[in-house]
Amino acid sequence: MPRWKPDARARLVSAALELFSERGYDNTTVTEIAERAELSRATFFRYFPDKREVLTAGQEALSRLLVEGIAEAPAEATPLAAVRAGLERAAGSMTSFHRELGPGLIAVVAGSAELQARDAAKHASMTAAMVAALRERGVPPLVAALAAALGGLAFKEAYATWIADEAAPDLAVLMGKALERLHEAAGRLDVSLEGSERPRQDSNLQPTD
Amino acid sequence: MPRWKPDARARLVSAALELFSERGYDNTTVTEIAERAELSRATFFRYFPDKREVLTAGQEALSRLLVEGIAEAPAEATPLAAVRAGLERAAGSMTSFHRELGPGLIAVVAGSAELQARDAAKHASMTAAMVAALRERGVPPLVAALAAALGGLAFKEAYATWIADEAAPDLAVLMGKALERLHEAAGRLDVSLEGSERPRQDSNLQPTD
Repeated sequence: MPRWKPDARARLVSAALELFSERGYDNTTVTEIAERAELSRATFFRYFPDKREVLTAGQEALSRLLVEGIAEAPAEATPLAAVRAGLERAAGSMTSFHRELGPGLIAVVAGSAELQARDAAKHASMTAAMVAALRERGVPPLVAALAAALGGLAFKEAYATWIADEAAPDLAVLMGKALERLHEAAGRLDVSLEGSERPRQDSNLQPTD
Repeated sequence: MPRWKPDARARLVSAALELFSERGYDNTTVTEIAERAELSRATFFRYFPDKREVLTAGQEALSRLLVEGIAEAPAEATPLAAVRAGLERAAGSMTSFHRELGPGLIAVVAGSAELQARDAAKHASMTAAMVAALRERGVPPLVAALAAALGGLAFKEAYATWIADEAAPDLAVLMGKALERLHEAAGRLDVSLEGSERPRQDSNLQPTD
């Protein structure tokens, strides 16, 4: 009998991550995940269509928030300012639960080609959602693609810092800073096609210190 | 009995694309692909580990060329100039065969979630390969991520133009131009975080005319 609790979803995610770490993704079944979470298989399938989705389902919610934040940015916001609004809105949905699970999640994904493929596909669909939201604002295709790519990089960079360092600031702040560093770096690239300048090694182009 | 010919690989790719277009990716078997190509299943598996790889196997060769081009760029080349060298080298390997198959390939991938995921994963691994090659040159992580992202966008953009327009110039030329447009657009983004400027609609930020 499933003991249904309000945090069933979180318990399933935690249990899955534990098991994937202990015995590998391929060697873990849905039944085992449900058992570890002290829930039934039926409860598992109420939350997730399959085993793979346990780890990436949250990315759809993030996509929605990114799109909302971009769509609702002030009319005068530039493409990158709109992306920043989207990132900040998405960041606001991420809790200490996501932060604690982060390192385990990254390790598990890195250990499975199937999870890596799924993760890449979800990241691509997040980026595509940002591009579509920017196009809705009248941003030209190439600029939309570029701003969304910077947004995707800022997201990854800020997330990595956030989960690696307990003393790191708020995720929304990290995302804004990552986006600023990226646009600064993009400005430096502006001269680099001439091929006359060495790559700069300034410390402010490194990940957050 | 397989009639082994030097162009077996190309015939398998063509046959697979035809069948995927006619009856859908999910409804096509390896046996049917081999039959259409007038080859045996054994020959199929000499070239491809599975059905999915028929359409994406070429991306590994592209990754290798990208990496070689970046690694062998002159020591004084900036990150973006090195990426450009990689793109040009990869472009050099793409023939009229790739160009003719392009539209069918894109349609088939767009119609299958599984192929989209595989395609996204391969694109992510191409980008990761470029990042690694740039890091080898001493490029800082964030700049490497950014330059590789621009390279990935330039690749997609140039490829789309190349397969859509028979009169389009050489793919290497298109890639260089796409990279230039992207770095110009990146320079414009430089001021946009202030939020005081409207997105520009200049025609030179649109895809090639």
